[in-house]
Amino acid sequence: MTAKQDRILLAHGGGGQLMDELIRGLILPKLKNDVLAELGDSAKLNLASGTYGTSSVCFTTDSYVVKPLFFNGGDIGKLAVCGTINDLAVAGSKPVAMALSLIIEEGFEIKLLEKILDSISEQARLNNVDVVTGDTKTVEAGAADKIFINTAGLGARLPGVDLAVGKIKVGDKILINGTIGDHGMTIISQRKDIKFQSSLKSDCASLADLTCKLFENTNGIHFMRDPTRGGLAATLNEISRDSALSIEVREADIPIKAVVQAAADMLGFDVLNIANEGKFVAVVSSESADDCLNICRKHPLGKDAKIIGEIVQTRDVPTVELITKIGGRRIVQMPYGRELPRIC
Amino acid sequence: MTAKQDRILLAHGGGGQLMDELIRGLILPKLKNDVLAELGDSAKLNLASGTYGTSSVCFTTDSYVVKPLFFNGGDIGKLAVCGTINDLAVAGSKPVAMALSLIIEEGFEIKLLEKILDSISEQARLNNVDVVTGDTKTVEAGAADKIFINTAGLGARLPGVDLAVGKIKVGDKILINGTIGDHGMTIISQRKDIKFQSSLKSDCASLADLTCKLFENTNGIHFMRDPTRGGLAATLNEISRDSALSIEVREADIPIKAVVQAAADMLGFDVLNIANEGKFVAVVSSESADDCLNICRKHPLGKDAKIIGEIVQTRDVPTVELITKIGGRRIVQMPYGRELPRIC
Repeated sequence: MTAKQDRILLAHGGGGQLMDELIRGLILPKLKNDVLAELGDSAKLNLASGTYGTSSVCFTTDSYVVKPLFFNGGDIGKLAVCGTINDLAVAGSKPVAMALSLIIEEGFEIKLLEKILDSISEQARLNNVDVVTGDTKTVEAGAADKIFINTAGLGARLPGVDLAVGKIKVGDKILINGTIGDHGMTIISQRKDIKFQSSLKSDCASLADLTCKLFENTNGIHFMRDPTRGGLAATLNEISRDSALSIEVREADIPIKAVVQAAADMLGFDVLNIANEGKFVAVVSSESADDCLNICRKHPLGKDAKIIGEIVQTRDVPTVELITKIGGRRIVQMPYGRELPRIC
Repeated sequence: MTAKQDRILLAHGGGGQLMDELIRGLILPKLKNDVLAELGDSAKLNLASGTYGTSSVCFTTDSYVVKPLFFNGGDIGKLAVCGTINDLAVAGSKPVAMALSLIIEEGFEIKLLEKILDSISEQARLNNVDVVTGDTKTVEAGAADKIFINTAGLGARLPGVDLAVGKIKVGDKILINGTIGDHGMTIISQRKDIKFQSSLKSDCASLADLTCKLFENTNGIHFMRDPTRGGLAATLNEISRDSALSIEVREADIPIKAVVQAAADMLGFDVLNIANEGKFVAVVSSESADDCLNICRKHPLGKDAKIIGEIVQTRDVPTVELITKIGGRRIVQMPYGRELPRIC
């Protein structure tokens, strides 16, 4: 990849094709090991600890650089806690503990820091997850943009839950727990200071309560991922590539709020590429699809849940196809990654 | 503390008094829980994982913002791996896995990223620790200073090793595994572009091999901490405050390289306040002190190890006193934190 670029572009962090090239072309070969190579939302580890026994955990990390720091539906603190909890949740674990690391620009207002800490505290409490360790660094004015937050998380793997792309098979259904694009369109519209009639609101939320309910009540879930950077398009493409199977989704079944669609149309975005922060995509067996849908719909974060498509046989190469509202077909490509920098 | 300051100062990240105020005055009350309240180098957790059993782990996080990125003796990548390994090591655990999160400024040279990843890879390999999960974010040119790295770490607690300030008692010896001030003086002299006759070199190194040898061969270690930001002065003051016991150290016994002392004298720094990245301070029982010293001296990272002082009865308030080379006494204060921003 160094032949193509010699400097980091914003799109290298966009959750799309270019980020994938950076990770697979440079980072993964340098750090290669079997657990990392899975590139899951969390790493799955068996921790043997001398005479203490063994436990099976999920481990994840994410840095948050969202701009603006405060947005309709959340802030960088809520995002950091929910984002890390969601990575643990979709990997089939129950979040247990978090580490919080702050990089703060000199001159940042302490009352804003306090608001952010309040958010972190509230989300941690709601999710029954303690922030057990942390770090605070400061950098000179101009050396960072206000505040960056890193949260690492530890989850206890749920007994009997073993999600893997390898379990996905033809006929499996694709389930999403609600509307897409809410987070990304909220951020971009606040950044551009565009006011829409009905206000946009981020879907930023912790999914662990809902995912744990699903895992407890059905064993039909084969794989799960949260469609953050790169949106639904990136997640479906990853699932298709990694399972070597194709996917068909029906445009008419993908839940999108009218205000989100309007904002995307106006600004020239494809909602499929837009980040979500309170959504998961689950690949479920066809027999369990109705059960999964019912469990979701009883939960506040799943009331708009839908089966949006299914896994189909690959003809040539694994592809994601969208059946449009008027019955046409188009390929959903892996986004390039330039859509929205600093979305989370 | 909001009464005193309304904005973040560089010294809030300096590892001294002001950082302590920020953490204890603002962060800790917001996030309060028993594990975090210990403010250890790592959090000690018991992970119960359904039918998988239980294991006892250490969990830690650190962000690295060092400037310059490459310095004599290391770079930000080596520092990030060693720093997190050391936090796990001094908490009495064997490092097992790491999470790596990068925040990269648009325009950063990919060949520098590659050098940093090579360092990370080498240190991970040397320490038998896999980077099992990660995250990559990009921010616009000017929104960060080149690259910031966060490493979170997981360690398996060593059976029978239970370090705690509560175990420290009068008569215990203070051991350090080598010379102090090497890392900090290297960074500051490279930043100011001062050339000394004999070149300064950071002590950046992973301590886990040495600490594991100590824990395997003696049970006399009561407490351990790595004197990074804030230097030996901050670590001794933390130990004294948290144990409510006083400390006496002998200036003549504190190992300092002549070139480090010369650089500090020339630039007006007190070496006691200067950061180290390959040192630990251990509080050990007086009976085990010689054993500990012998184990250290057989290891490349402990050949200059010394007993530098002891725990003494508190008369009034817990204090750290330095017996100077000419037999005088002075109080070693908690540094304010302004000594050196972006040292690690």
